[in-house]
Amino acid sequence: CSLTDMDSHSRKLREFPFVSAAQKRLMLDLVSTVENRLDSQLLPCSLPSDVRYYQSPSATSQASLHIRPGHPHSPIDFVLGSWVHSELPTGGSLDITTLSAYLNSSTDAPNFVFEIIRSSPTMLVLFLDLLPRKDLVLWSDYLKTFYEDTQLDVHRQTLEAVPEVQPYFSSSLYVRAAASPTVILVRILTENGGVERMEEIIRDHLDPISKQVLGIWLDHCACAKREVGEAERAYLRKRDGVVRNKTIEIDLGSSYPKMFGAEVANRVLESMKEYFTV
Amino acid sequence: CSLTDMDSHSRKLREFPFVSAAQKRLMLDLVSTVENRLDSQLLPCSLPSDVRYYQSPSATSQASLHIRPGHPHSPIDFVLGSWVHSELPTGGSLDITTLSAYLNSSTDAPNFVFEIIRSSPTMLVLFLDLLPRKDLVLWSDYLKTFYEDTQLDVHRQTLEAVPEVQPYFSSSLYVRAAASPTVILVRILTENGGVERMEEIIRDHLDPISKQVLGIWLDHCACAKREVGEAERAYLRKRDGVVRNKTIEIDLGSSYPKMFGAEVANRVLESMKEYFTV
Repeated sequence: CSLTDMDSHSRKLREFPFVSAAQKRLMLDLVSTVENRLDSQLLPCSLPSDVRYYQSPSATSQASLHIRPGHPHSPIDFVLGSWVHSELPTGGSLDITTLSAYLNSSTDAPNFVFEIIRSSPTMLVLFLDLLPRKDLVLWSDYLKTFYEDTQLDVHRQTLEAVPEVQPYFSSSLYVRAAASPTVILVRILTENGGVERMEEIIRDHLDPISKQVLGIWLDHCACAKREVGEAERAYLRKRDGVVRNKTIEIDLGSSYPKMFGAEVANRVLESMKEYFTV
Repeated sequence: CSLTDMDSHSRKLREFPFVSAAQKRLMLDLVSTVENRLDSQLLPCSLPSDVRYYQSPSATSQASLHIRPGHPHSPIDFVLGSWVHSELPTGGSLDITTLSAYLNSSTDAPNFVFEIIRSSPTMLVLFLDLLPRKDLVLWSDYLKTFYEDTQLDVHRQTLEAVPEVQPYFSSSLYVRAAASPTVILVRILTENGGVERMEEIIRDHLDPISKQVLGIWLDHCACAKREVGEAERAYLRKRDGVVRNKTIEIDLGSSYPKMFGAEVANRVLESMKEYFTV
């Protein structure tokens, strides 16, 4: 299967069934851009069907997860797409849509992460970054190549010029430390303009900016030729390992068991670990 | 001399002659707190007098710089205090006051940096951080010890709750990358409340917060017992070297020659390099 093919489970991913029209369009475009560009390098998703789609015992939370591993000779380790829909006790719902792409240690280029966390029709948090895989202080040529020369910060500046957009500080210091200096980590609140204004912001701002950042990742990271020596590979494997452990720990260690119950959360966790272990 | 003693040049530092009453009070308190606490570990300032106080050929820019090196057996490498006053072509002035403290490679604890950049009576940028000396992604125990367990982020949150305070993004990606996840890097704008409101914010918010952060640095960093092995020392020397080179490069490579002319800027640069070379 692909991240967007037609079997009954991945159709659920393709549908992004619970989010607004503009958000769904954006997610579908990002997923298909990655799949079209990297198609020859990606293997089919082989997750079990109860991980590709899962729900809490009471069915108040549902989710879909797809992971396509890279071919053995590709620098792509895997591409992950997911959505989570969880009814809130207050009556609303929490919706998370994610697309991320991890490279292996044959390259040191940054990973791609895109996540929209929408806790109400008029509020969302966007996390969009090319996650550095080296200490940017020590490797200033790395900072220059991937973050300065690519003009990544222009896109952050463009988005922050929208009045409803504010910088967002994750409560996890680890998340802040792992992000790049050009990370787009913002909260968007459209209390006055309502859900229509949120759709407009997604369509007119998030959409083009996300696509441009993904384009930079595809051109300058996923498809870059990088020389990586043996010592550097060991360093990358170590650092990648820490980052991936933390990612699972933060995501699944906290919110997943609450949303899906311990049993389902553990099943998903174990499946993800196969890919997240370096 | 000390950073605040009575000889003719360092008196200029002690006076912080060009800044407002509240800012001067804050700078003096921070300098004297550091000097009182670390006094037995600090040697006198031995900078030449034309670096302790210097000005541009036209005298439109003036500055004072004091550096007290640590004793050979102290973990303190040096403490630096400075002010810069530069008349702007537009009629106003730019004032920068700085207190920073660098540790040597016998410890891996963070450095302290405090800087106020005031480009008008109603606008300032504050940079206050415990600068990490290790990659926080790879060393998550380091992140926990110095940033999570010390509750540093509370002070950032407190300050950002003041309506006139906004996150500030340095145009240098390097500066952003080198900062900790709890860095206080903010712009304060009091256009409506004028200079009185700025004084109030400095007195009621910047003052207590800066002193608390300095207290955390003194208690948990400057005076912490840390075990540092030989390989780790080599790592620290390398990383510190990059950070310090960049600091001089950014400060002096750009703004100093414009403010003071090439000759004076080079003289100051060469003096600073003696301390900033690891």
